[in-house]
Amino acid sequence: MRLSNSFIKTLRDAPKDETAKSAGFLIRAGYIYKEMAGVYDYLPLGLKVIENIKGIVRDELNKIGGQEVLMAALQNPELWKKTDRWDDQKVDIWFKTELSAGGELGLAPTHEEPITNMLKTYVKSYKDLPLAVYQFQTKFRNELRAKSGIMRTREFIMKDLYSFHTSEEDLDRYYHEVENAYARIYDRLGLGDITFETFASGGVFSKYSHEYQTFIPVGEDTVYYNKDKSVVLNEEVLQDDVLEDLGVKRDELEETRAAEVGNIFKLKFKYSEPLGLKISDENNEIKTVYMGCYGIGISRVMGVIAEKFCDDKGLVWPENIAPFKFYLAPIGENGSKIAEEIYLGNEDKILFDDRALRPGEKFADAELMGIPFRVVISDKTLAENSVEITNRKTGESELVSIEEFKKSI
Amino acid sequence: MRLSNSFIKTLRDAPKDETAKSAGFLIRAGYIYKEMAGVYDYLPLGLKVIENIKGIVRDELNKIGGQEVLMAALQNPELWKKTDRWDDQKVDIWFKTELSAGGELGLAPTHEEPITNMLKTYVKSYKDLPLAVYQFQTKFRNELRAKSGIMRTREFIMKDLYSFHTSEEDLDRYYHEVENAYARIYDRLGLGDITFETFASGGVFSKYSHEYQTFIPVGEDTVYYNKDKSVVLNEEVLQDDVLEDLGVKRDELEETRAAEVGNIFKLKFKYSEPLGLKISDENNEIKTVYMGCYGIGISRVMGVIAEKFCDDKGLVWPENIAPFKFYLAPIGENGSKIAEEIYLGNEDKILFDDRALRPGEKFADAELMGIPFRVVISDKTLAENSVEITNRKTGESELVSIEEFKKSI
Repeated sequence: MRLSNSFIKTLRDAPKDETAKSAGFLIRAGYIYKEMAGVYDYLPLGLKVIENIKGIVRDELNKIGGQEVLMAALQNPELWKKTDRWDDQKVDIWFKTELSAGGELGLAPTHEEPITNMLKTYVKSYKDLPLAVYQFQTKFRNELRAKSGIMRTREFIMKDLYSFHTSEEDLDRYYHEVENAYARIYDRLGLGDITFETFASGGVFSKYSHEYQTFIPVGEDTVYYNKDKSVVLNEEVLQDDVLEDLGVKRDELEETRAAEVGNIFKLKFKYSEPLGLKISDENNEIKTVYMGCYGIGISRVMGVIAEKFCDDKGLVWPENIAPFKFYLAPIGENGSKIAEEIYLGNEDKILFDDRALRPGEKFADAELMGIPFRVVISDKTLAENSVEITNRKTGESELVSIEEFKKSI
Repeated sequence: MRLSNSFIKTLRDAPKDETAKSAGFLIRAGYIYKEMAGVYDYLPLGLKVIENIKGIVRDELNKIGGQEVLMAALQNPELWKKTDRWDDQKVDIWFKTELSAGGELGLAPTHEEPITNMLKTYVKSYKDLPLAVYQFQTKFRNELRAKSGIMRTREFIMKDLYSFHTSEEDLDRYYHEVENAYARIYDRLGLGDITFETFASGGVFSKYSHEYQTFIPVGEDTVYYNKDKSVVLNEEVLQDDVLEDLGVKRDELEETRAAEVGNIFKLKFKYSEPLGLKISDENNEIKTVYMGCYGIGISRVMGVIAEKFCDDKGLVWPENIAPFKFYLAPIGENGSKIAEEIYLGNEDKILFDDRALRPGEKFADAELMGIPFRVVISDKTLAENSVEITNRKTGESELVSIEEFKKSI
């Protein structure tokens, strides 16, 4: 991508109401644009980051048999009345609207109801299970307060996976497969060492659910942890009986702030029973299907990664998340000529700063945008038939021969 | 993809209220699921078709300098009041909703307003133009009637491109580039020979706009055409002055039904003026930006392609749109063993019917699903070390050696 052709310009200031550091950088570096509180657009660089995150998640979910679909946002109230989740007193984050032709509709805050109902058409027998269905879809939640940039929004991109089983054992088996997949996902997202499976309240049908909490100061949740015993729990379950279950004492726990980047949940019959998702078993008896659900907030994860890896100069993307691997910044006429040659055929890998700017301006933008490697070509580097590559994370620079650099792209 | 692992089963019947042939086939073959009138889910095969269509459109728009973004669906009324498109009396297809925190929001039926407003942050000078921004995004339109399956829905996937220019000449130049890109897109979608740029009413700021109309009997529009003079016009502009402009007489025109699969529009100052998108020109004078907008209904195009190419047995996807190129249908134990070997490593190209079904059932599903090539491996074909490949479109079969088939994948 050529910066001279891009409509993006880095900005001196972010909106005053953005308190999260990452949100300020994401806006100033041209990754996102704030429409209003809790509502953002994804600009070309931001959309590439979103697609990179989705790519990692998709890859790991396909490995555990996930089948990708895309469900509608508009929701028929009748399904949600069956599970008692339509009433605003019960679920207080609905956006609701009206059909011209008459009748209320909702904007999906999640998709258990329509997915469960849709599968009634296809799942009839124990032979049709197990199965797992997921999507990357835009969710709408009417949050009273939206803050922390794209970490808590009213419209966001979520990966939601739902699994369906003939028995509790099979649900447990798959739940564990998802735990492993999630561990791989957070590792690949660069968050593995600060993201922990966390005990949280389980709701009606199981004692606990699991959240994935990334320890960062800007996180909205308070969690307690004991590293030796590998226990992390949300403050909402900091009770004597829970501590006893987990085999830790209150004074063995440390407190920290964390951002929830995923959750997994054994739903069992919570939705399949009221919606009537049933199968005939080996003995031709009718049984209710066991369900699990598993979420990852894709746009929130982007915010958390941005927050975790930024420094005082800007964003610092991990290589497999970054919109481009290289920021190519030629200086002077000769540098520009060679840069053009290098760029051609590598448009997908290189963010090419071919603008007529001073070196300092290019370097500042490279740092703000957080591209992993800044590649400078100037008369000075050309004198050694080289480019200067600077690692955004470490700040270290080295001269690399042009041939070697070309190969490394 | 293995059909034994897929939750999709072909269905005997489609919902009774589906009148379009293609909608019935798309539902029965497991491409889409109807949530309610005008609201559909995309199941694994359907999502692949959508992504294939998007891939073609993206490729052609990138060639003409389009920059991909993703705008929010939730809309701030203030922007739309400036252009007088918030009032339900003026724009009657809004879905509106309320923020918990207070205030009305809309669900975007299109994105001229937010795109124009967003660009005010980035576009200041004539040097920032021209530019073109596009997205694939879910649009919401509160249609009084929804019909023809995914050809007219209340929630749909649209590609919307917006271009910005310093002068009318430059808008004209880019408009023509888009015309060429659209011609290539409809060709690659397999609709080139029945899709025509069509004169339609232009609204306030230009006499005409252009629609792209695909001639199919199930289309909602009536158009008039003269092949010799290469003139097609929507019935809404069938007036004496228009006929004179286009140099045709009423009795030289034939009438037909058509589905609108795209539109392009010279907006000029329609949105940039009320929203204040201005630049300073070469002489440092402040000028209003010229705009164009260009839409393609991605999900509608999927419906139109399905409608155009189906026969009485089911769907008949063009090869570059089809979710898979091959439908691999082994018969018997030996056939299954060889099919497994062929399938491995080709999971993306082959829809593998590894289910324990009778050959007739597999063949019927292959035809209903419309996969371009059905590949049968049986004892009979193995006796000649071959597979039997049947072209879905022509129905012609030929024996091809296993080695040759493997290479062709």
